[in-house]
Amino acid sequence: MPPDGLDARVAVGDRLGGPVAVVGVGLMGGSLGLALRRRAGAAEVRGADPDPAALAAALERGAVTRACASPEEAAAGAGAVFLAAPVGELPALARRALAASGEACLVSDLGSTKAGVMRGLDPRERERFIGGHPVSGAAQGGVEGAREDLFAGATWFLTPGAEARPELVERLYGLVARLGGRPVAIDPEVHDRLMALVSHLPHVVASALIHQAAATAPAGREALRSAGPSFADLTRVAGANPPLWADILLDNHEALVAALDEQSARLGEVRRALVRGDRDWLRSFMEGAAAGRERLRAAQAAPAADAWRVVVGIPNHPGVISEIATVLGHAHINIEDLALSPAPADALGELGLVVSGAETARRAERLIAERGYAVSVAQVE
Amino acid sequence: MPPDGLDARVAVGDRLGGPVAVVGVGLMGGSLGLALRRRAGAAEVRGADPDPAALAAALERGAVTRACASPEEAAAGAGAVFLAAPVGELPALARRALAASGEACLVSDLGSTKAGVMRGLDPRERERFIGGHPVSGAAQGGVEGAREDLFAGATWFLTPGAEARPELVERLYGLVARLGGRPVAIDPEVHDRLMALVSHLPHVVASALIHQAAATAPAGREALRSAGPSFADLTRVAGANPPLWADILLDNHEALVAALDEQSARLGEVRRALVRGDRDWLRSFMEGAAAGRERLRAAQAAPAADAWRVVVGIPNHPGVISEIATVLGHAHINIEDLALSPAPADALGELGLVVSGAETARRAERLIAERGYAVSVAQVE
Repeated sequence: MPPDGLDARVAVGDRLGGPVAVVGVGLMGGSLGLALRRRAGAAEVRGADPDPAALAAALERGAVTRACASPEEAAAGAGAVFLAAPVGELPALARRALAASGEACLVSDLGSTKAGVMRGLDPRERERFIGGHPVSGAAQGGVEGAREDLFAGATWFLTPGAEARPELVERLYGLVARLGGRPVAIDPEVHDRLMALVSHLPHVVASALIHQAAATAPAGREALRSAGPSFADLTRVAGANPPLWADILLDNHEALVAALDEQSARLGEVRRALVRGDRDWLRSFMEGAAAGRERLRAAQAAPAADAWRVVVGIPNHPGVISEIATVLGHAHINIEDLALSPAPADALGELGLVVSGAETARRAERLIAERGYAVSVAQVE
Repeated sequence: MPPDGLDARVAVGDRLGGPVAVVGVGLMGGSLGLALRRRAGAAEVRGADPDPAALAAALERGAVTRACASPEEAAAGAGAVFLAAPVGELPALARRALAASGEACLVSDLGSTKAGVMRGLDPRERERFIGGHPVSGAAQGGVEGAREDLFAGATWFLTPGAEARPELVERLYGLVARLGGRPVAIDPEVHDRLMALVSHLPHVVASALIHQAAATAPAGREALRSAGPSFADLTRVAGANPPLWADILLDNHEALVAALDEQSARLGEVRRALVRGDRDWLRSFMEGAAAGRERLRAAQAAPAADAWRVVVGIPNHPGVISEIATVLGHAHINIEDLALSPAPADALGELGLVVSGAETARRAERLIAERGYAVSVAQVE
């Protein structure tokens, strides 16, 4: 949802551009369908899925309004196509959706890794394909578990390439916000390294802990009943959707191998401290973790309120939004909302961004000015 | 609480044996005091703590009814003394409590590791000292967080040595049940290996993950805000109470080093599968974790109902209860409740045990009969 009081000129774009297609109607695709219909006001949500039973269930649940026989049928005449398929299949599916859809159609995806799909497409294809990744966890798959609020309050990463058409970036930003997500522009490689750290490594570790407990628990079933809350917390995501996760881990193997190596090195440090009986080291290790956790928690709890508007005069051509988003992203400034005005067809226009906090707005202003653009900031009343 | 319908002969022993002393009135000791007063009907709960402010707060909160200047003052004339202190201090504190208390006084502890304290005492001391460990998690310490239901439904490990006096084992079983805990007799070394696996390793891993995220997060604060629920779950216990945990980890370093080595080996296997691009291996790794997690969850969810009574004719001397508990423990049979009859002063008596399920009861009967005891089983109506 747009921050209260955001004026019409910088309001979230609410054009769907036509029917919306969702390819793959499991938990994620099904939830997207429900959210599109109930939150974004989509009158027609088309679904396609290789599994006819899943498609029928999605229709039955109201996650889609029309069942299509193929991604092509779903994409034809659509304003936006979302691909909710295993990451390994995304480049080929994106190509099919792009080929079957019109020149004004946005194609995006919900994949957990982003470098693979962005690299798998060529610059021409990246004009209309903008990668996405809503960070919404749910261990149980299937359209049965779909819910319209799955994305509410969740970060939704977007990876527009330099070639991305500004009006499609804007449409995607607006859609994500209306679905309840929090759009965060990010470089695809940075995204994947981050996910290796905060999602893929945790999934591997949780699963390894379960294997270890199941294999070596010295006192069997009865004693394991006693496993306390820490074990339950750490292993909640263990073994989540094996085929899906095998794909995700493999797709992000480079970043994940690096993360695993670092994790092993850190466990090795703890081991050495234990062997030499170094109480001070162990204490400072736990203290460092406490402080780190506190910092991360503070960052997560920071309110997204105190909205500031940053208005940039831009030539209306591909690359400008991506350039500005990248500059701000490198400075850890997130764009909470984004809109173009006047109509994207004009040669010159304004890019309206919303960021959080006065200090952030001032930094954004300076960084954008340094790139040679006219820029002004004002608090959103 | 004893299962409904348990008849008087096998009912939980409800004798406190006099005032109860709690040495160390932080979160655990404070919660124990509250539970002793409100659940076990203790009229007098004495507290001792090296920190006068903590002791005053415990008195203020009603966790203790009398503040004592030393463990000795608290233990004098008590029926039971519970030590809620850092594990490294337990043997010395236990010795002081034993010396200051009468011959009928039970001494126990709430420490997270058990081999150290049991080995730190001599056989004579282990007649009245019976180790305990309620598995109750709470990241935040201090008597301010104490609550009477901290142990409700929680496993409470007990490590009676072969020398333990039967009537004190019985008293402890009864007390634990009345505090809401679920008593589980276990060998101290087995306990520590189990805790290394389901608690200490998870705490180390969670803390290592936080260190890694804080040190290497490529996109800083904004991107870390996006860390999904899996990361939050895995790192909830990171950095919990650093001085306390430095002690616990060090005290259990042997079992923990072994657990760390195995964890590293398992992460190494995942790494090799990623490097060779082995989707099948990764999939079966995740499937194995899913199955393991399901098994553990089923064990944890198993109802403690369907109570069966196992009555054993025993010579009333030390070692018998420990022998039977150990035999059953090795067979993964848990004793849900335990009582002696008639009065423990008699030379011959009956040991009444409660276990869950007909099949378990039959196995217990066979195992006990094999040790040469007269035994019978019957369902608790």
